[in-house]
Amino acid sequence: MKLIRTMALFALCAMCVPFSRADEGMWLFSNPPYKILQDKYHFRPSPDWLEHVQKSSVRFNSGGSGSFVSADGLIMTNHHVGADCLQKISTKERDYVKTGFSALSYAQEPKCVDLELNVLMSIEDVTSQVAGAVKPGMDSAAAEAARRAAINTIEKESRDKTGLRSNVIALYNGGQYHLYRYKRYTDVRLVFAPQQAIAFFGGDPDNFEYPRYDLDICFFRAFENDKPVHVEHYLKWSETGAAEGDLVFVSGNPGRTERLDTVAHIEYQRDYSLPGALNVLRRREVLLRGYSERSTENARRAEDELFGIQNSRKALLGMLAGLQDPAIIEKKRAAEKSLQGAVEKDPKLQQAYGAAWDQVAATIKTLVKIRDEYNLVGYGPAKRAQALNSDLFDIAITLLRLPVETAKPNPERLREYSEAALDSLKLHLFSEAPIYEDLETVKLADSLGMMVEMMGADNEMVKKVLAGKSPRDRAAELVSGTKLKDVAVRKRLAEGGLKAVNDSNDPMIQLARLIDPASRRIRQTFEQQVEEPQREAYSKIANARFAVYGSSVYPDATFTLRLAFGEAKGYVEGGQKIPWATTLGGTYEHANAHQNKEPFELPKIWQERKRQLNLATPFNFVSTADITGGNSGSPVINRQGELVGIIFDGNIESLVLDYIYSDQQARAVAVHSAGILEALRKVYAANRLVGELTGKK
Amino acid sequence: MKLIRTMALFALCAMCVPFSRADEGMWLFSNPPYKILQDKYHFRPSPDWLEHVQKSSVRFNSGGSGSFVSADGLIMTNHHVGADCLQKISTKERDYVKTGFSALSYAQEPKCVDLELNVLMSIEDVTSQVAGAVKPGMDSAAAEAARRAAINTIEKESRDKTGLRSNVIALYNGGQYHLYRYKRYTDVRLVFAPQQAIAFFGGDPDNFEYPRYDLDICFFRAFENDKPVHVEHYLKWSETGAAEGDLVFVSGNPGRTERLDTVAHIEYQRDYSLPGALNVLRRREVLLRGYSERSTENARRAEDELFGIQNSRKALLGMLAGLQDPAIIEKKRAAEKSLQGAVEKDPKLQQAYGAAWDQVAATIKTLVKIRDEYNLVGYGPAKRAQALNSDLFDIAITLLRLPVETAKPNPERLREYSEAALDSLKLHLFSEAPIYEDLETVKLADSLGMMVEMMGADNEMVKKVLAGKSPRDRAAELVSGTKLKDVAVRKRLAEGGLKAVNDSNDPMIQLARLIDPASRRIRQTFEQQVEEPQREAYSKIANARFAVYGSSVYPDATFTLRLAFGEAKGYVEGGQKIPWATTLGGTYEHANAHQNKEPFELPKIWQERKRQLNLATPFNFVSTADITGGNSGSPVINRQGELVGIIFDGNIESLVLDYIYSDQQARAVAVHSAGILEALRKVYAANRLVGELTGKK
Repeated sequence: MKLIRTMALFALCAMCVPFSRADEGMWLFSNPPYKILQDKYHFRPSPDWLEHVQKSSVRFNSGGSGSFVSADGLIMTNHHVGADCLQKISTKERDYVKTGFSALSYAQEPKCVDLELNVLMSIEDVTSQVAGAVKPGMDSAAAEAARRAAINTIEKESRDKTGLRSNVIALYNGGQYHLYRYKRYTDVRLVFAPQQAIAFFGGDPDNFEYPRYDLDICFFRAFENDKPVHVEHYLKWSETGAAEGDLVFVSGNPGRTERLDTVAHIEYQRDYSLPGALNVLRRREVLLRGYSERSTENARRAEDELFGIQNSRKALLGMLAGLQDPAIIEKKRAAEKSLQGAVEKDPKLQQAYGAAWDQVAATIKTLVKIRDEYNLVGYGPAKRAQALNSDLFDIAITLLRLPVETAKPNPERLREYSEAALDSLKLHLFSEAPIYEDLETVKLADSLGMMVEMMGADNEMVKKVLAGKSPRDRAAELVSGTKLKDVAVRKRLAEGGLKAVNDSNDPMIQLARLIDPASRRIRQTFEQQVEEPQREAYSKIANARFAVYGSSVYPDATFTLRLAFGEAKGYVEGGQKIPWATTLGGTYEHANAHQNKEPFELPKIWQERKRQLNLATPFNFVSTADITGGNSGSPVINRQGELVGIIFDGNIESLVLDYIYSDQQARAVAVHSAGILEALRKVYAANRLVGELTGKK
Repeated sequence: MKLIRTMALFALCAMCVPFSRADEGMWLFSNPPYKILQDKYHFRPSPDWLEHVQKSSVRFNSGGSGSFVSADGLIMTNHHVGADCLQKISTKERDYVKTGFSALSYAQEPKCVDLELNVLMSIEDVTSQVAGAVKPGMDSAAAEAARRAAINTIEKESRDKTGLRSNVIALYNGGQYHLYRYKRYTDVRLVFAPQQAIAFFGGDPDNFEYPRYDLDICFFRAFENDKPVHVEHYLKWSETGAAEGDLVFVSGNPGRTERLDTVAHIEYQRDYSLPGALNVLRRREVLLRGYSERSTENARRAEDELFGIQNSRKALLGMLAGLQDPAIIEKKRAAEKSLQGAVEKDPKLQQAYGAAWDQVAATIKTLVKIRDEYNLVGYGPAKRAQALNSDLFDIAITLLRLPVETAKPNPERLREYSEAALDSLKLHLFSEAPIYEDLETVKLADSLGMMVEMMGADNEMVKKVLAGKSPRDRAAELVSGTKLKDVAVRKRLAEGGLKAVNDSNDPMIQLARLIDPASRRIRQTFEQQVEEPQREAYSKIANARFAVYGSSVYPDATFTLRLAFGEAKGYVEGGQKIPWATTLGGTYEHANAHQNKEPFELPKIWQERKRQLNLATPFNFVSTADITGGNSGSPVINRQGELVGIIFDGNIESLVLDYIYSDQQARAVAVHSAGILEALRKVYAANRLVGELTGKK
C-alpha cells in the first residue's frame, strides 16, 4: 500500500447496510461509528480519546500517514512513505534509502527538502456556503466557477483568521462540504530509517502479500524555529502491542475510494480508466527498470519512483481483476437497482434524485471522448501531463501560470494558486530536491513518444512540440537546454512576474507556453463538463441514500483523516489457516526459503544479531480494519489510545475489498509495536530512539 | 538480436540505388552481389565457394541461424538461439541454460525435444506457376485460394519427388516465387553451452550495445539413425579469425524487413503496429518479471520466454524511435515520390503499376479495422492468438483443426496443414517440451484479461470464453482441467480423427472449439482482404522498381538464406572512436566497472582461470554487414570460406538501419573465432570440442 493514491473503486455493501456488523468503514472523526463499536465491541470512544487520537495523527502530504510518538515531535511513518524524503536527501555517496540511518542527537538529524506534514485541528461543516453558491439555473460552467469561488474564499478567510492550512473537502461525493484546518510542519528531519532490504523485505513479490516480515518504519521529527516541537498529543508506545482478538483502530488518511460510483461509472473504470492507467504504469516500469539496470547509481536515482510505479501497478491489477469478475458487476448492478427502485417508489425522491444516474452516465460519455487529451496534456493539482513526464516541465508550467493566476482575484484562480494553497505550491516549486538530467531525458523522451503514438505524428501540437526532431533528440535538447534545475533561476523568474516569464527564452518555459492553452482548455472541459455535473449528480445519489438507508454512514475516502476499526485476527486461505501475526524468527525462515537472494536478502546486521533477538516476538500482524492507499504509516491503536502497530500494506484479498467489503480474507497488514522495539533494541541498538519511545531515556 | 523475427521495416536507400558502394543488402545465393563485391573488394565468389557456404549454413527453425563446423555434424549457433532447446531439456535440478554443459562423448550429448534444422539444398524459380495461378478478373478471395492451391501443390510434388522439405517463398513481396528445398534434421543434440552469465554477459542493459563481451555460442550435433551425420560441407575454423579491415561475409536467415513498404504502410507501423506490439510486450514483460521474482524455479521456467520478450521490446523500441523521427519519414516520402514520378512519366508503367500505392493504402484501412480482432483471436502459422496466450490452447486448436484440414484435398488446406508442412507441425504438436501449469495459468489469465479490456466485457464471445468467471478463475480452471499436457493424450486425439476431437470434453479443446469459427473468419478476412491484395500491389511496385532502377537488387528478408557482406571496422560515436574489436581482458574490466553485479557478474570459472588467458585475444568484433533478427548465430566467413566469427547482435544504431541503411555507425556484432577458441581451451578445457573444431583431435 502506498503514497500514490491508487484508485479504489467501490464496495458493494458500503452504505447499503449502514448497521452492518462488519468492521467496515473509513469514518469521519466528526461522526464516528458509535453504534457499531458499542454493539460489536462494547466500546465507546470518549471525546477526549477522539481528540487525542486525531491530534496525534499526522498526514504526510507526499501521500501517506503517520503519528506523533513522543512529546518532542517524534513522528513514525512507513519507510516507504519516508522514502520520498530519504530519496531526495540521498546522493551517490550517501544513500539513506538503501543503507538506513540513525541519529544520535538533534544536531545529526538531516532536514527533508520539501516535506509537508499536516495535523488536523478542527472540522467545520460549510455545506450551506458551498452548495448555496450554486444557484438554480446556472449552467455547469457557471456552477463550477461559483463553487470554486466559494471554496477559494472560505479557505482564504479561514487561513487569514487562524493561520492554519485550510481546505474545503467535498464529502459524500459533494453531499457535504467540510472545512478542515491543519497545523502545518515544513521543517521535518530524519531521525531513523532501517535498511530498505528489511523495510521492504520480499520486495515486489511480497508486496500486497501476507504472511509478511517487514520493518516498514521510519522516524522523523517536526521542528519549528530550529527546535524540536513540543506536542501535547502523541501516542504512548505499547511495549506488548496488539494481541490476537484485540479491537484495534487505524487513524489515517485513506486516499480515495469510489464506493458510491454508479455501475456506468464502474464500467468506465473497468473498460478505460484502469486498463489505460495500467498501460502507462507498465510502460514506465519497463522504462525505469531498463534505466536502473544500467548502473547502481541509476538504480538509486530511479528507486523511489520505480517502487511507486510497481506498487500502483500491483494494486490496480488487483482492482481490475475484481472488476473483470462478472459476478461482482452483477452484484453491484443489483444493489443499484435496489436503491433506484426505492427512489422510484417515492415520487418526491424520484422527482429530486431520479435523474441522477443518467446524469452520471452522460458525464462518462464526455469523459470517454476527452480522456486521452486530458490525460496527456491536462495539468493541475495531483494531475500531471502524461505526455510530458518531467519534473522540469512541471516546474516550467507552474512558473508560467504563477503570475497569470496570482494577478486574478482569489475567487477566480485555479485551485492550486488560491491564496490558501500558495504556501504548499511554493514549497514544491522551490524544492532543492535533486533533478537528474539523464533520468529526466529518458522519461521525457518516452512520454513524448507516447504523445506521438496517441495524438498522431501529424497532429499540429505534436509537430510543434517535437520541432522537427525525434522524441529522443527533442527531450535531450530540452533537458540540457533548460536552466530550471537551478532553484535560484526559478525564484528569479517567480519574482520577476509576468514580464520575466514572458521574456524567458528557456526552452522548457517555451514548451510550457506551447502546451498551456490546450492544457487549460482540456482541464476546463473536464472540470465543467465532467467534474461539476458529476458532483451535482452524486450529491443527489448520496442524498437518496441518506433518505432510503438513513444517515449514519461514512463518505468515500478523500485523503483526509478517518477512523477505521477492526479485530486482530487471521484468516483461512485455500483451506490453510493464516496466522494473525508473524514472528521475527519467521523472517529468517522466509529468507532461507528464498536462498537469501534479493529481494529476500537480509541486511548483514540482521544476520549478525540474530542470536540476540527473541525470535518469538510478533513482527507483522493483520486486522480487519478498512483501509486503502494513503493509510500507509497509519498508527494502529488500542482501546487505551496506545500505539500497538503501524499499517504498511493490505493483503491481496484487500484489493477486492475496494469493491465488496468483506472481513473474510481481506486484511490490513501492520508492523507490530513489540517487534519494532525488539529490532530497535537488539539489531540497531538505537538506544536514544528506544528511550524516547518508551519514556525511559 | 534474436530468434523472434522482430519487425524490421524499411531502408530508405534499399533498391533505389542498386549499385550503391555501401555494404548493403541481404542477397539471394541465386543472385549474389557480384558487381559490388568486384568493384569495392575485388572479390568474386566462385560457384564452389557459394555452394560450400550455402550448404554449410544451417537454419534453426526456432528462429535463428548456424553453421556446420565439422564433418561429423557439429553445428555452432548462438547460446540465445540454442536456449530454446536448453530451456526445454532443463529441469529444476539441471538447468542447462544457467550452468552450461560440455559433453565428453557422443553418448553424453542430450537430445533436443523439438528442434528442427534446415540446410538449403536447392533454389528453383516457380514464379510463373504461382503468379499464373491467379487469373485476371479473380476477386481477392478467389485469387488467394488459387495462389494457395498452387503453392500447396508445388510443395507437395517437390517433397514427394525429392524427400526434401519444400517451401515456396514469396520474394520481392510477391514479385517472384522461389521453391527452396531443405535437408531436414530433427535429431539434434547438445554438445556444448557456456554459462548464461558469460553468453549474455551484460544482460538487457548491454543488449544491442557495443563494445560487448559475450561468449554467445552453443554447439549442437545433427544425428541420423542415432549416429552423427557426416557432412560434405562445413566451415573450416580460422584460428586467427577476422582482422581489422577484412572483407567478411554473413550467411544466415534474416527474419523480416519491410524496406519496400509504402509510406502509408510505414505510417501504419508507426501509428498502430509497433505501439500495439510494444504494449503487449511490456505487458508480458511485467507479468513474467513478477512471476520470475517469486522464486528461483519460477525464474528458470520463464527465462527463455522473458529474454525473448525483452529482446523484442528493445528492438521494436529502437525501430519506433526511428519512425517517430520526422526527418526519416520525410526522406522516405521523397524516395516514394521519386519512384512514383518516374512511373507517371512512362504511360506504360503508369498503366501497369500506377495504382499500386493506392491499393496498398486501401488494405491498410482494412487492416486498421480488423487488427484488434485479428491479433486477439486470429491463429495460424507464426500467428498466435494474443487473447489466449497459452501453449495448451495452441495445442488444443491445432488438434481441433488437424482432422478438419487433413480431410480436405491438399490444395484447399490451410498452409500449415498442407502435406508438405505436416511433418513440422506434428514435431511441435507432439513435443515433449515441458509445460508448467502455474506459468500457463498466469499467462492465460493475463491474456484473458486483455481480451476483456479490448473486446469489452459485454461482448458475447468474451462472455462465453469467461463462462461467468473472472479471467484468473477461468484460466486456473482451464489449465488444471485439461489433459493436453500429456503427449499421449494428444496423440490419441490426433489418431482418433474428427470423432475423437468432437467427442472430447477436455475444457481446452472446448475453448478452442468456441474460438475456432471467429478465429478462422478473421484470418480469412486478413488473408483475402489484406495479404492477397497487398501481395498483388507490392508485386507491381517491385516490378516498377525493376523497370526504373534495374534488376540487380535484393528482396526483403523472409527468414531464408541470404548472403550479406561488409568490412570489419569500428566507428565513431559522440566524437569517440569505438574499436573494431574488444578483447577477453576487456571483459574483466567491464565486469569491474559494474561492481561484478548481475548481469555483469562473471561465472566463477572465468575469475579462476583469468591468469591462464591471453587477455589480448579479440573477443567480440563488429562489421558493416547488413543483418537483422534471425541472423543470430550466422557464421562470419572470410574470403577463403573459413569461419572467423559468429553474429549475435546488432548495435543500437543498427536498429535504425532497418529504415535507412548506413555503414556510418550501424554494425553487426559477432564473437571472434580466436576468442572462442581461447575460451574453450583455457576456461573450459573443452579439449574434445577444440580438437574437433581445429581438426587436431
